[in-house]
Amino acid sequence: MATVGARTWVVAGGRIPVDSNGEEPEFTSFDQLCLLNAEDADAGVELVVYYADQEPVGPYRWVVWARRIRHVRLNDLVDPEPIRLGRPFGCVLTSSVPLVAQFQRQDTRLPGVLALVDVVAYPVP
Amino acid sequence: MATVGARTWVVAGGRIPVDSNGEEPEFTSFDQLCLLNAEDADAGVELVVYYADQEPVGPYRWVVWARRIRHVRLNDLVDPEPIRLGRPFGCVLTSSVPLVAQFQRQDTRLPGVLALVDVVAYPVP
Amino acid sequence: MATVGARTWVVAGGRIPVDSNGEEPEFTSFDQLCLLNAEDADAGVELVVYYADQEPVGPYRWVVWARRIRHVRLNDLVDPEPIRLGRPFGCVLTSSVPLVAQFQRQDTRLPGVLALVDVVAYPVP
Amino acid sequence: MATVGARTWVVAGGRIPVDSNGEEPEFTSFDQLCLLNAEDADAGVELVVYYADQEPVGPYRWVVWARRIRHVRLNDLVDPEPIRLGRPFGCVLTSSVPLVAQFQRQDTRLPGVLALVDVVAYPVP
Repeated sequence: MATVGARTWVVAGGRIPVDSNGEEPEFTSFDQLCLLNAEDADAGVELVVYYADQEPVGPYRWVVWARRIRHVRLNDLVDPEPIRLGRPFGCVLTSSVPLVAQFQRQDTRLPGVLALVDVVAYPVP
Repeated sequence: MATVGARTWVVAGGRIPVDSNGEEPEFTSFDQLCLLNAEDADAGVELVVYYADQEPVGPYRWVVWARRIRHVRLNDLVDPEPIRLGRPFGCVLTSSVPLVAQFQRQDTRLPGVLALVDVVAYPVP
Repeated sequence: MATVGARTWVVAGGRIPVDSNGEEPEFTSFDQLCLLNAEDADAGVELVVYYADQEPVGPYRWVVWARRIRHVRLNDLVDPEPIRLGRPFGCVLTSSVPLVAQFQRQDTRLPGVLALVDVVAYPVP
Repeated sequence: MATVGARTWVVAGGRIPVDSNGEEPEFTSFDQLCLLNAEDADAGVELVVYYADQEPVGPYRWVVWARRIRHVRLNDLVDPEPIRLGRPFGCVLTSSVPLVAQFQRQDTRLPGVLALVDVVAYPVP
């Protein structure tokens, strides 16, 4: 099989919803990166977070093992610092091996209401 | 007409919602692949499913006939094994002829609530 | 400005929702193609609709004027024949000049519920 | 790092929802462009808005600073003129440096209902 994916991916429209309703963690609001590494080598991933009003923060680092997926709720990032809820952001992900990145949001700001979005991130050729 | 599509498509953000509300099958929660084969040859399709914590499973196999679409609810796959509800996954689809792949989710976990997502899968050049 | 868009676009995941609730036409369920022609020439567009269980139907024809957009509710197509509600379909759009195509669904099958999806169609290079 | 993004982006499916429900500005309906400039130079951005029934309007101009994001609610544009609510439109964004553009809609036309869409805009190569 050919190489599956790209080494750099971009999301411009991040903003973790400020509130959540419903059972945790199933209905907690989130912004999420979904990564699929179809290669036979582990992927070292670095994420840099961009804001409207300050210098970028990062890198956040993790690993996506060979032949595995990893869905990362951006709410859960703590090192070097959490992403504040309700704050507009974007991010650039770079990986040591090619992978595929999708961005998802679950929004439960309103009680009894569920809104979802899903985009394939922008791959840098 | 030129060749329409690609032979390999990737979805990183799979997760069939754990519950459903409303009339079946119209309102059953699902993750779905929508395939369009505009070519004059039948497409033999193989799907490999990737997980966070075990080796990939597959291939799942089916056919998309020449000049036909096929919408496949991933909930319905049984051979070699079903995809468990609520479990994060990704998948890589390969086809014997070029086609176009879209990924959709219908989420009815909450009674009287409907959430939909839709992405064109990532085509491997 | 460089040429904006492609001459062929594909949507694999069509299915006009079977019911509608709320004021017409604002809340009528629909599948829609959104076309933007940034060129200085009118675009003659042809749409062929693909099904799971019969030969393709078409072409449906219309024009997107130079420097104009056109949002076409697929529910409204009648010639050569309407697309039946609730029936899975896909479509291939070809245009005489490059343009950009987006696919949207508004789903009001449930009373007091609104679900939307939006994807950029797949451009054939 | 390589150049991140493209200089021209297209959205064909704009239409700011005609009504809003809930607390402002958190739940105001909007169409929004999310821009990420990962470069070390400020990006001068020009947006031209296309309609179904008149010549394009623009350019609307703003800056996305180096290493910053900017999320622009299209409801808020006033110069040269506002985009009317409920009116179908599309837009072409051009930038002096490469960036990444995402398009989002928040729809709160119905009380107690939230619908979201999110697409990566179409990058002109």
